Amino acid sequence: MSGRLYGLGVGPGDPELLTLKALGVLKRVRVVAYPALEEGDSFARAIVAAHLSADVREIAVRVPMSPDPNAALGAYDRAAVEIAAELEAGRDVAVLCQGDPFLYGSFMYLHERLVGRFQVEVVPGVTSLTAAAAAAGRPLVARNESLAVVPATLSEEALVERLSGSDALAIVKLGRHLEKVRRVMARIGRADEAIYVERATLPQQLLAPLSQAPDAAPYFSMILVPGRGHR
Amino acid sequence: MSGRLYGLGVGPGDPELLTLKALGVLKRVRVVAYPALEEGDSFARAIVAAHLSADVREIAVRVPMSPDPNAALGAYDRAAVEIAAELEAGRDVAVLCQGDPFLYGSFMYLHERLVGRFQVEVVPGVTSLTAAAAAAGRPLVARNESLAVVPATLSEEALVERLSGSDALAIVKLGRHLEKVRRVMARIGRADEAIYVERATLPQQLLAPLSQAPDAAPYFSMILVPGRGHR
Repeated sequence: MSGRLYGLGVGPGDPELLTLKALGVLKRVRVVAYPALEEGDSFARAIVAAHLSADVREIAVRVPMSPDPNAALGAYDRAAVEIAAELEAGRDVAVLCQGDPFLYGSFMYLHERLVGRFQVEVVPGVTSLTAAAAAAGRPLVARNESLAVVPATLSEEALVERLSGSDALAIVKLGRHLEKVRRVMARIGRADEAIYVERATLPQQLLAPLSQAPDAAPYFSMILVPGRGHR
Repeated sequence: MSGRLYGLGVGPGDPELLTLKALGVLKRVRVVAYPALEEGDSFARAIVAAHLSADVREIAVRVPMSPDPNAALGAYDRAAVEIAAELEAGRDVAVLCQGDPFLYGSFMYLHERLVGRFQVEVVPGVTSLTAAAAAAGRPLVARNESLAVVPATLSEEALVERLSGSDALAIVKLGRHLEKVRRVMARIGRADEAIYVERATLPQQLLAPLSQAPDAAPYFSMILVPGRGHR
């Protein structure tokens, strides 16, 4: 009998934001896989490092930072073959996913390569969205309000269009798109309400009004515009 | 010294989706508060019932189901006074919140009454949004896709407006608005992609294509339209 593939949400960064369910799966499986930089560490692995025993097999999915999208897809192709071999041998495999596997998670690249052939179970995790709101101490969305979650990678016009008309906004995958997002926030009249959140729940967490955000934003940063409530 | 107020996200329903952090707070505090029906149980309390010791003081915030909005606000006013007395006596108080406290959480009613006077810490939780996507086995949003989260309580025209143009959609607080949402999904051309999810992660969880959804939807149900990916 084949093993089961787990997409394991490990939360936004604070190891304490792991769920009991994810911890249980981690302690049970003999194989874990995770995305990692070409050289160096895996953020997802670091979150659960304290719970990994020495005899667990680790498969690092090393995704090249290349302008050629096929380079990354090749890495997922090879990882899927390696993971499939473990599953076929009857071993369960947990793929570690920062945040939640199905909310902008790289797990999707493995999921689409393996679903149908194997049993898959996704364990949802705390997302950086609500973790950032908690860190900022600001209710994100309440009552009859709506929320738009949009990646900063879209064009300026697409961002303006998709962010207009929602009460609460979250612009994720900020990185080198910060200046464009500043212009968008000014154009839609929400710049004064926008909060910059970098590495929420980690020791190096940084919170600032958008006007005081640093010039260089990392990939793991976002802009939140909380709903205004109806007080 | 005053106690600390915790907004404690306890996740979507499966007790195993509690975080280690929320569990730690629960074991430490001597007072917990939670929303409850006028008569009967509290869903948030049920999720963590196994972890509540007998000597914890419990404050049930009994919110009347009344067409008069002031009736509910009065319940929060009274609960805030009771909680403030505990905090002033130096005791930490954890307010249990289904899902995440700052994503449509009723914690906001207590937060707005107590913030500024007391130290507040919000512990984010797994939301029903990503739990429903996990239950459906469908990636919610990927790559350059955007997500709109909209309460079904809005008017049909407002729903059409706010749900058009996003790749992935989540319509929450479904309840008695199911028929309206069916019309909206048809109008925006997404009816065939829509998934009905009721009580995600609980034993009585129900998943169906929107066309086969039951006639009567409970409040804790939603419609998901996953993004289409870019395969």
